[in-house]
Amino acid sequence: MGRLSHLDAEGRARMVDVSDKAASAREAVAEGFVRMSKETRVLAFSGQAKKGEVIATAELAGVMAAKKTADLIPLCHPLPLSSIHVAVEPADHGLRVVARVKTTAQTGVEMEALTAASLACLTLFDMLKAAEKGMVIEGLRVLEKSGGRSGDWTA
Amino acid sequence: MGRLSHLDAEGRARMVDVSDKAASAREAVAEGFVRMSKETRVLAFSGQAKKGEVIATAELAGVMAAKKTADLIPLCHPLPLSSIHVAVEPADHGLRVVARVKTTAQTGVEMEALTAASLACLTLFDMLKAAEKGMVIEGLRVLEKSGGRSGDWTA
Amino acid sequence: MGRLSHLDAEGRARMVDVSDKAASAREAVAEGFVRMSKETRVLAFSGQAKKGEVIATAELAGVMAAKKTADLIPLCHPLPLSSIHVAVEPADHGLRVVARVKTTAQTGVEMEALTAASLACLTLFDMLKAAEKGMVIEGLRVLEKSGGRSGDWTA
Amino acid sequence: MGRLSHLDAEGRARMVDVSDKAASAREAVAEGFVRMSKETRVLAFSGQAKKGEVIATAELAGVMAAKKTADLIPLCHPLPLSSIHVAVEPADHGLRVVARVKTTAQTGVEMEALTAASLACLTLFDMLKAAEKGMVIEGLRVLEKSGGRSGDWTA
Amino acid sequence: MGRLSHLDAEGRARMVDVSDKAASAREAVAEGFVRMSKETRVLAFSGQAKKGEVIATAELAGVMAAKKTADLIPLCHPLPLSSIHVAVEPADHGLRVVARVKTTAQTGVEMEALTAASLACLTLFDMLKAAEKGMVIEGLRVLEKSGGRSGDWTA
Amino acid sequence: MGRLSHLDAEGRARMVDVSDKAASAREAVAEGFVRMSKETRVLAFSGQAKKGEVIATAELAGVMAAKKTADLIPLCHPLPLSSIHVAVEPADHGLRVVARVKTTAQTGVEMEALTAASLACLTLFDMLKAAEKGMVIEGLRVLEKSGGRSGDWTA
Repeated sequence: MGRLSHLDAEGRARMVDVSDKAASAREAVAEGFVRMSKETRVLAFSGQAKKGEVIATAELAGVMAAKKTADLIPLCHPLPLSSIHVAVEPADHGLRVVARVKTTAQTGVEMEALTAASLACLTLFDMLKAAEKGMVIEGLRVLEKSGGRSGDWTA
Repeated sequence: MGRLSHLDAEGRARMVDVSDKAASAREAVAEGFVRMSKETRVLAFSGQAKKGEVIATAELAGVMAAKKTADLIPLCHPLPLSSIHVAVEPADHGLRVVARVKTTAQTGVEMEALTAASLACLTLFDMLKAAEKGMVIEGLRVLEKSGGRSGDWTA
Repeated sequence: MGRLSHLDAEGRARMVDVSDKAASAREAVAEGFVRMSKETRVLAFSGQAKKGEVIATAELAGVMAAKKTADLIPLCHPLPLSSIHVAVEPADHGLRVVARVKTTAQTGVEMEALTAASLACLTLFDMLKAAEKGMVIEGLRVLEKSGGRSGDWTA
Repeated sequence: MGRLSHLDAEGRARMVDVSDKAASAREAVAEGFVRMSKETRVLAFSGQAKKGEVIATAELAGVMAAKKTADLIPLCHPLPLSSIHVAVEPADHGLRVVARVKTTAQTGVEMEALTAASLACLTLFDMLKAAEKGMVIEGLRVLEKSGGRSGDWTA
Repeated sequence: MGRLSHLDAEGRARMVDVSDKAASAREAVAEGFVRMSKETRVLAFSGQAKKGEVIATAELAGVMAAKKTADLIPLCHPLPLSSIHVAVEPADHGLRVVARVKTTAQTGVEMEALTAASLACLTLFDMLKAAEKGMVIEGLRVLEKSGGRSGDWTA
Repeated sequence: MGRLSHLDAEGRARMVDVSDKAASAREAVAEGFVRMSKETRVLAFSGQAKKGEVIATAELAGVMAAKKTADLIPLCHPLPLSSIHVAVEPADHGLRVVARVKTTAQTGVEMEALTAASLACLTLFDMLKAAEKGMVIEGLRVLEKSGGRSGDWTA
């Protein structure tokens, strides 16, 4: 089948060899949700957090995490990211995170977008857990990617 | 309300001051799921991955990520972890990750367990995405914690 | 003279051996300034930055940098920090950063406080440099320290 | 005004999108000073430090810090640096650090040069603080930059 | 003589300036050995390690270490690696590690290959030291390099 | 046999659980050699390196690497090191590195000492490779350890 590119012919984990691929513009968008009570969500935007610190902290954590992706995911390539944008917004049952990442490189940035969204969700969890321990992170996935040999893709 | 301990009186983000708390034994367990097709799940355990590399790589990524928690979550305290155990196992609609972390410290390890589970899920995603781009990470949450002033808690 | 504790008998750089010292509560406060035009300072707090993002980003960068001190200053000991608080406030000729760090450890946290203040200043510089390239970071110093064998000290 | 490029239209912190800019040769020079007593400055170059360890350690810390800039300054781009040079030399009231950094990239290296100079200053502080706690880091600024769309600039 | 390119005209350590060199395809292979008793070697592949975890963990540690080379070796350039492959195999008196690294960059990847091999050896040591404390890491060297101005080279 | 403590009952890699062990004073010493021609060794100490920069850089790299051990070796515990000392000295066929590390912790520091010695060797290699590509790192091992339940040990 040969479909798991992170394994070599002997089934050994490896970083995929992209040395023969041309660098091209690539982009990926990922999203994730933190499900919480209405009360906790209000708190995240409430007077107590009058400077929007909960939201701002999570967005920054997402941006910084995208830059650490190759350090966190064992077989990811280190990439020179040209844009990272992370936004936290209210959603039906809690908060939604959207992360968009761009590069010009030999491989794509889906994992960077997912890592940014994931760490923004975890940071929201950390900052709100004093109010609600039972929150759940849900629906973390790639929404779309563009560029590269495999072309565009939308969830 | 005073419920968001990560904000000071002026609504400014801060690391919670735990300098007056005694160090005590603490433990936390977190879980997460990667939802995927039956075909992809088979692939993760199949002959191609004959050395269990997909599973082993994700488990290691989880262990290593737990040690980076304070570097990833802006307001987390750096803690001396005494045990980290991450296990990936088959689940109904994909794979389940369970992460258990222990410390003797002035604050708990819920975020360390969540970070371990989260990065193990992301690593599974990375290693299987060549087979299925539409996987979704779900149900990432704390299952239980013990120790510390706030006592034991189970989801 | 024996006054440079970071050099051994042969003049070789070393981490000071604190293995015989008892852990005790320690605290340090450092400050720093970013000198800028009145116009730039207004911008930092202005409507454009309506969520206080410039200030919030710098404060978080300071908190996160304190946790990286041992990774940045070659001969610093890795310490389990129990509290980090960084505040940016208006000053006569720009912005003032104050960083306060606590630990219970075998050595003090002056360098952690200075590193936090320093990186908060650098982050303010980064976020405001599009408006004014000629800003200057000034007056970065330890204001006070307490705890440890050498006792309390105030600038 | 639109002058703070690190904020998006909603005032949210973001990494500036440089994906449409061409990579070009860029260079930046920064300086900083550690103000200290004449006695302490003598110590830094004295027989006790007979191998120049104080100076050498600070220079290396500066070089290594430049490579960590994107990890320290939340909205900095990760860049492939092609040259880093840090020199510590005697100055009127203490020691002067000069850091020069080069890259071929889509954005400039002012923050890398400033970070190198800043951490070299902090390391000098660390190594000399046993002799003088009241040292002050002063005059940390960009001296010149060249390359890129905004062209050359000198302080 | 001018043969130590990491020292400037004043004998000061520096990162070599490669800003005038063109990026080109480069590759390096390094090897290392962990000498151990036959009994310990058997253990590494035995039923107890039925999932090949000792070997798999060491290979991953090597891959991840290659990505940290510039963070570990003070004067190394940060490089965008396009391929990393690490294999552990039985050898006459223990285990052999072979690491192969590729990049398209202004400088070579010998140090990345050596760092990968070195950390894979250290990880084998860590995982087997409960069985044998007296293991020795031997024969860590560059086997071959290709690309760049200095051309190909074989040990 | 149960001799590989890094594998759980199912053969899965794990960080050893030390949560029930008492913290105690521990120390480890490791050594390593870089075998090189006499000519290269002379160069390392020669007039060109008049400030001892080759040696000083390698010693510092060793000290800094010891602090990164838990980040490099997947199953190592993060430990609060109380002393790190690395010395490079001439040896029969090149240079010898000796690294000594101390902690008060629930587990030992053999891997920290080995990592320090290993990275000091790699840094010597990096700084001298312009003169001699064929150097070999040899004899990297633990010389002695003390403290902890398993008691003292000497090679």
